[in-house]
Amino acid sequence: MYAARNLTPGFILRFAAKPVFVFAAYATFVTCLYELAGLRFLALPFVPISLLGTAVAFYVGFKNNSSYERLWEARKLWGAFVNDSRTFTVQLLDYLQPSGQLDAEALKEHQRILVYRHIAYINCLRIQLRQRKVWEEKHDPFAAIVTEKTPFVNQNLLKEIKQFLHDDEAEWLYNKSNTATHILRKQSSHLRHLHESGCVETFKQVELGRLIQAFYDHQGACERIKGYPFPRQYAFFSEVFVWLLAGVLPFGLVGELSKLGEVYVWMTIPMSVLISWVFLVMEVVGDRSENPFENSVNDVPMTAICRNIEIDLREMLGEKDIPGRIYPVRNIIM
Amino acid sequence: MYAARNLTPGFILRFAAKPVFVFAAYATFVTCLYELAGLRFLALPFVPISLLGTAVAFYVGFKNNSSYERLWEARKLWGAFVNDSRTFTVQLLDYLQPSGQLDAEALKEHQRILVYRHIAYINCLRIQLRQRKVWEEKHDPFAAIVTEKTPFVNQNLLKEIKQFLHDDEAEWLYNKSNTATHILRKQSSHLRHLHESGCVETFKQVELGRLIQAFYDHQGACERIKGYPFPRQYAFFSEVFVWLLAGVLPFGLVGELSKLGEVYVWMTIPMSVLISWVFLVMEVVGDRSENPFENSVNDVPMTAICRNIEIDLREMLGEKDIPGRIYPVRNIIM
Amino acid sequence: MYAARNLTPGFILRFAAKPVFVFAAYATFVTCLYELAGLRFLALPFVPISLLGTAVAFYVGFKNNSSYERLWEARKLWGAFVNDSRTFTVQLLDYLQPSGQLDAEALKEHQRILVYRHIAYINCLRIQLRQRKVWEEKHDPFAAIVTEKTPFVNQNLLKEIKQFLHDDEAEWLYNKSNTATHILRKQSSHLRHLHESGCVETFKQVELGRLIQAFYDHQGACERIKGYPFPRQYAFFSEVFVWLLAGVLPFGLVGELSKLGEVYVWMTIPMSVLISWVFLVMEVVGDRSENPFENSVNDVPMTAICRNIEIDLREMLGEKDIPGRIYPVRNIIM
Amino acid sequence: MYAARNLTPGFILRFAAKPVFVFAAYATFVTCLYELAGLRFLALPFVPISLLGTAVAFYVGFKNNSSYERLWEARKLWGAFVNDSRTFTVQLLDYLQPSGQLDAEALKEHQRILVYRHIAYINCLRIQLRQRKVWEEKHDPFAAIVTEKTPFVNQNLLKEIKQFLHDDEAEWLYNKSNTATHILRKQSSHLRHLHESGCVETFKQVELGRLIQAFYDHQGACERIKGYPFPRQYAFFSEVFVWLLAGVLPFGLVGELSKLGEVYVWMTIPMSVLISWVFLVMEVVGDRSENPFENSVNDVPMTAICRNIEIDLREMLGEKDIPGRIYPVRNIIM
Amino acid sequence: MYAARNLTPGFILRFAAKPVFVFAAYATFVTCLYELAGLRFLALPFVPISLLGTAVAFYVGFKNNSSYERLWEARKLWGAFVNDSRTFTVQLLDYLQPSGQLDAEALKEHQRILVYRHIAYINCLRIQLRQRKVWEEKHDPFAAIVTEKTPFVNQNLLKEIKQFLHDDEAEWLYNKSNTATHILRKQSSHLRHLHESGCVETFKQVELGRLIQAFYDHQGACERIKGYPFPRQYAFFSEVFVWLLAGVLPFGLVGELSKLGEVYVWMTIPMSVLISWVFLVMEVVGDRSENPFENSVNDVPMTAICRNIEIDLREMLGEKDIPGRIYPVRNIIM
Repeated sequence: MYAARNLTPGFILRFAAKPVFVFAAYATFVTCLYELAGLRFLALPFVPISLLGTAVAFYVGFKNNSSYERLWEARKLWGAFVNDSRTFTVQLLDYLQPSGQLDAEALKEHQRILVYRHIAYINCLRIQLRQRKVWEEKHDPFAAIVTEKTPFVNQNLLKEIKQFLHDDEAEWLYNKSNTATHILRKQSSHLRHLHESGCVETFKQVELGRLIQAFYDHQGACERIKGYPFPRQYAFFSEVFVWLLAGVLPFGLVGELSKLGEVYVWMTIPMSVLISWVFLVMEVVGDRSENPFENSVNDVPMTAICRNIEIDLREMLGEKDIPGRIYPVRNIIM
Repeated sequence: MYAARNLTPGFILRFAAKPVFVFAAYATFVTCLYELAGLRFLALPFVPISLLGTAVAFYVGFKNNSSYERLWEARKLWGAFVNDSRTFTVQLLDYLQPSGQLDAEALKEHQRILVYRHIAYINCLRIQLRQRKVWEEKHDPFAAIVTEKTPFVNQNLLKEIKQFLHDDEAEWLYNKSNTATHILRKQSSHLRHLHESGCVETFKQVELGRLIQAFYDHQGACERIKGYPFPRQYAFFSEVFVWLLAGVLPFGLVGELSKLGEVYVWMTIPMSVLISWVFLVMEVVGDRSENPFENSVNDVPMTAICRNIEIDLREMLGEKDIPGRIYPVRNIIM
Repeated sequence: MYAARNLTPGFILRFAAKPVFVFAAYATFVTCLYELAGLRFLALPFVPISLLGTAVAFYVGFKNNSSYERLWEARKLWGAFVNDSRTFTVQLLDYLQPSGQLDAEALKEHQRILVYRHIAYINCLRIQLRQRKVWEEKHDPFAAIVTEKTPFVNQNLLKEIKQFLHDDEAEWLYNKSNTATHILRKQSSHLRHLHESGCVETFKQVELGRLIQAFYDHQGACERIKGYPFPRQYAFFSEVFVWLLAGVLPFGLVGELSKLGEVYVWMTIPMSVLISWVFLVMEVVGDRSENPFENSVNDVPMTAICRNIEIDLREMLGEKDIPGRIYPVRNIIM
Repeated sequence: MYAARNLTPGFILRFAAKPVFVFAAYATFVTCLYELAGLRFLALPFVPISLLGTAVAFYVGFKNNSSYERLWEARKLWGAFVNDSRTFTVQLLDYLQPSGQLDAEALKEHQRILVYRHIAYINCLRIQLRQRKVWEEKHDPFAAIVTEKTPFVNQNLLKEIKQFLHDDEAEWLYNKSNTATHILRKQSSHLRHLHESGCVETFKQVELGRLIQAFYDHQGACERIKGYPFPRQYAFFSEVFVWLLAGVLPFGLVGELSKLGEVYVWMTIPMSVLISWVFLVMEVVGDRSENPFENSVNDVPMTAICRNIEIDLREMLGEKDIPGRIYPVRNIIM
Repeated sequence: MYAARNLTPGFILRFAAKPVFVFAAYATFVTCLYELAGLRFLALPFVPISLLGTAVAFYVGFKNNSSYERLWEARKLWGAFVNDSRTFTVQLLDYLQPSGQLDAEALKEHQRILVYRHIAYINCLRIQLRQRKVWEEKHDPFAAIVTEKTPFVNQNLLKEIKQFLHDDEAEWLYNKSNTATHILRKQSSHLRHLHESGCVETFKQVELGRLIQAFYDHQGACERIKGYPFPRQYAFFSEVFVWLLAGVLPFGLVGELSKLGEVYVWMTIPMSVLISWVFLVMEVVGDRSENPFENSVNDVPMTAICRNIEIDLREMLGEKDIPGRIYPVRNIIM
């Protein structure tokens, strides 16, 4: 996530430089053909192009809106992880009780294991979601910025979860096809054992089971956003339309400007660049926001969220030696 | 689902070739009438056509949006099947307990039967949803691609569910008017028997019953999307409007271009094709996305999702010999 | 519901004929005044009319969207009736148990009565919703088609529910001001009696009570859509705006076309008809979809849904002699 | 709520007369300055005004949409009151049981008191919501119609609730800062007493408590809509923009029409009135719908809904002497 | 929140003055270059600028819509705090019962402590949300008005919660990294102690636990809105586009007006200011509404809501000496 109010000039330059150059070169080429090579039939009326532009603006607006909804849904899901992690911990601490088989001290250790396994779960899911899918393999200025500027890297999954789990358990889980799914499975069976030991009443076991269900729901929704891109038939044509529009714009502008006089024709170049660039940026902003788990600058800041959850939960356990919050590095927080 | 980032040129060609040809032929015909046959009164002013185009863009945008919402809802429903299948299995494993009537070993077999019947349910629903409805019988380039390129076929329902069910039960279920509905009915009565055998407490039986309710909800929502198309009054006129617009466009363009001079008139053909094609593609993309269960390239990838559920569930049962994930064939995953 | 992919030419003709004639007559009249009577000051510039058209397109688009949402909500509610009817029946069959006061045979009969009463409920609600409200009394081509073409009629409520209820109960319920509401009330008190007889545990009685609550919610939502039309202040002005636009269009077109030459002026007639018709159809399609329970061709197919529910539920009771599905008659399914 | 299909001419006249007069006077003034006073520099090009108009249409469309959502949410909330009132009554009748301390007859009286107190609650909330807030104090044609035409008045809160409550209780509640809130509080403590008398099991008490929670939710949502207007920064500028647009329109029209010839200039007046009026009506319709609890003609018909609830609930109690439904008076139902 | 129906002229002036001046200066400069310096090639055709304006209007409309949704969600969340606070208090009063260990008097004191701690929670959350984040540090006329006109200041968190909590507890909580989170944690463990003392049945303890869960959900959602701004890539370019449009507008207007004649050229200045200002205000209104917890005039009025909750809850406890409601100060209510 970009965490400053305004984008820096460098950021915009990187973003804008290449298409501006392409549009300028193209418009210059068209204008030269018209003006220098004298191909006067290249001039087109602008009103039909205006109709085309309006239709394209509709379509790009629709894509922008849908992409934003995907991003916002992803952010809400990680917000839900924060909320439900707090609730889960509070319930683990207040719904379990010592029994004949398990004294207060032993129960406390079980509670610690359960909370640590939950922290492992959250981090495991984060790493799983940050793996690349095929439809993301494309030169992307937003991703390039992250790679260059920030020290966040996809940590090794096994190493990460070993921080919070017993080594054997971590390795057993690591070998499952979807590790996060099986961590939750483990939480559930741990609670069954505590139920069998008399430490949790049926009703409270089921209440905790509903939180596990909620975690499966949030996880599945994240996996859906990750695994099901904005439908390609919609996304692809949006880009095609913008490039087609940019392709005919100089012809229409040459036509419109030549009406005003010879000298105006060269204004085709800045106007063409300006309008094409606005449409392209609209398209690109939507396009780069549609996948919020791709190590790009528009990502949901999962690393920071995971750390915040860890801090809250370990404070609830009464621990002292707790790592600090994660702050933005050069305005980017992951 | 189309699983690559960009559509291939072949895909687009197939998609674009026929209408481009039709539009080109029509525009050529109109231009010849005007220019060669000298029917000058065919030229029309463009501004009113522009107003028409704006109104049509609104309407097509509305259809696109609604179609996308149908597709996205369908995808969410299958995401919910993934989540609830995981929860259902975890609860079957952790909420049942051996009793006097049923020892641990026997209970384990019951759990296996319940989980396998759930896999049968998911696959049965998938096959039921992939049957064709009357409003889909139309030449559809998206469907043609699938038929040609990919080996996915609608497997025989009975054969499919026999993999996961006892043969007698499979046949009894197959003869019901809605097999999936009765598989869930069977799950519920199986749980009643386990309740009567003392293996599941009332409270937990009801909790599992709520998941069965959730499956009925998701199934019913899929059947609603399948059985209730985007209302024809909305859908049909969208197509009519686009064709009407395409029909008057060359007249307007001839008018606008003839103002610039004789030589420009022939530019009617490429401009007419371009604008008509953009509107048509907008319409067609929405039109082809509105029904997400029709064996078309825009389908929700139910086959892959069913397999993922099968893998997760059988891993939870501790099985070893598990089939692999389904990967896209020529960029298409069903 | 119109169940074919495309509307038939006859359907469109019926739909289009009258306004096309009106628009044509009006445009002819205006053109004659201008051209024959020589009232040259009738010509107006088109650009301001274009602005008016854009604003109207916005407003009509908003109405279309809202109408579609009403229709779609109605369809979702009837989908929810399907899902919850299945769940209700499954729970009635699996959550009740014989007791000292009521043996297995007697319980089975109680279960049959409860399920039949539910079928009565669904059909009763359907008939109540199909009664006409005052804001629907208007000549409506969609309704005319249904009246003419299809044999579906509003059956007598009492006769209909007597099929599924004891005669005395049916008559007692029929005399309530809202029969459907009191059928559910009866279901609840029947379950109370079974609870008092020891056939249903407290927890399961409450679980069934939640489904009764769900039915009240769905019923109330249908009654809300039925009883609270799309607000008249929004709906009415949408129609007024379209007619105002259609009223000024010929003046603008005469002005625009007369610029091109004398001969073009008569093109006012087809262009005016075309643009006015597109705006009118957009308006009318939304207008006719906003009330989904009015015996019109855009209705939610409640009759077919009720039959599907009846089939599923009676199959669950193990009955054999079950009526068939309802199929579209001349492409219309109610 | 306006309950007829179309608005009457009188209604529209009232609505339209004043702005039409203002716009006409203004346009006449501008045209005279141009034509008679010869201030030719007042003519402006129309295309930039068209751009302004498009932007304003967007903004007004956004306001319309948001206002409609507020109105629709309010109507949904009152629909939810209907549904939950039915459920609450059914559960009061079927979840309470006689106990050693309270025989069947006494319980029946308690049930009657609880249901009557609920009717008091609904009516109390209605009256509280119909009080005026400061941002509604403005001349409003919709409200004027109601004041003039209909006999509905804000009844005295105390008098109204005394119909359904014991006098002492009514007065005690009336003196609370939010009476409705404390009626629900009273329902809850009444149920606690019945629980202590053994008339309601814990589980059923909590189930009824959830309905009380639902009533608090619906009440709070109504109070939110009432107490938090559509944000003024959005609402206010929408009106400003429309008036700015209406302010420049005649200048643009004079410019456009003068191109056609001297005689056309006077057409500025009707065209200016038409376009300004359409924009103004769009704005006003949204503006007057954004607050649905203000004794205006666009209000949610709470009085009628309260009566319907009263009828349903008293029929469920088996009462005979029940007041009738409320019908629209001169097409307006409150 | 601005609580009057219309904004005051002073408010608008403050809002409008600076950009109007900038736009006027810029347009004057451009017009002088064209007219006085004779740089005739500066005139541009307006139609392409119109297309640009339409696209920008789309984008700004999208931002407005999204910002409004953020604001509205924030307001809904605080509405939910009101509702759930009422429910929580009612349940605390009616679901707890004296036991052998805790007599009625002692229980009453526990109830008072729990309700007071809830008031502390609400106020603590309000103060935490009103802290500034980095993306808000910008000159903002809305915030300036508040700072100047109103006496509301961010009270010291510790001082505020000490009003409702025991001093030791307040200080212990104050030292946690997220105080609000740990107040809820404390509520939960207090209820566990009451459960262990036999004052609350398991089922009711879990029901109260669900409200604590709801508070975590609402709190987390507020923190999400606070901590995750409207994505900068969307927000920033919206502003850039508006300034680019404002930058080219005078060139286009000079072009369009010079067609009408020399004298018209100076009309560039007012028209440019008008159109630029409308676009800018649209942008700014959305921009200033997107963060509803920033001590700005568009804030959710949390201070007033907290006070209303305090009044309701203390009235429920039967207290007499209760502070009054908070009223707007110079039309602003925080």
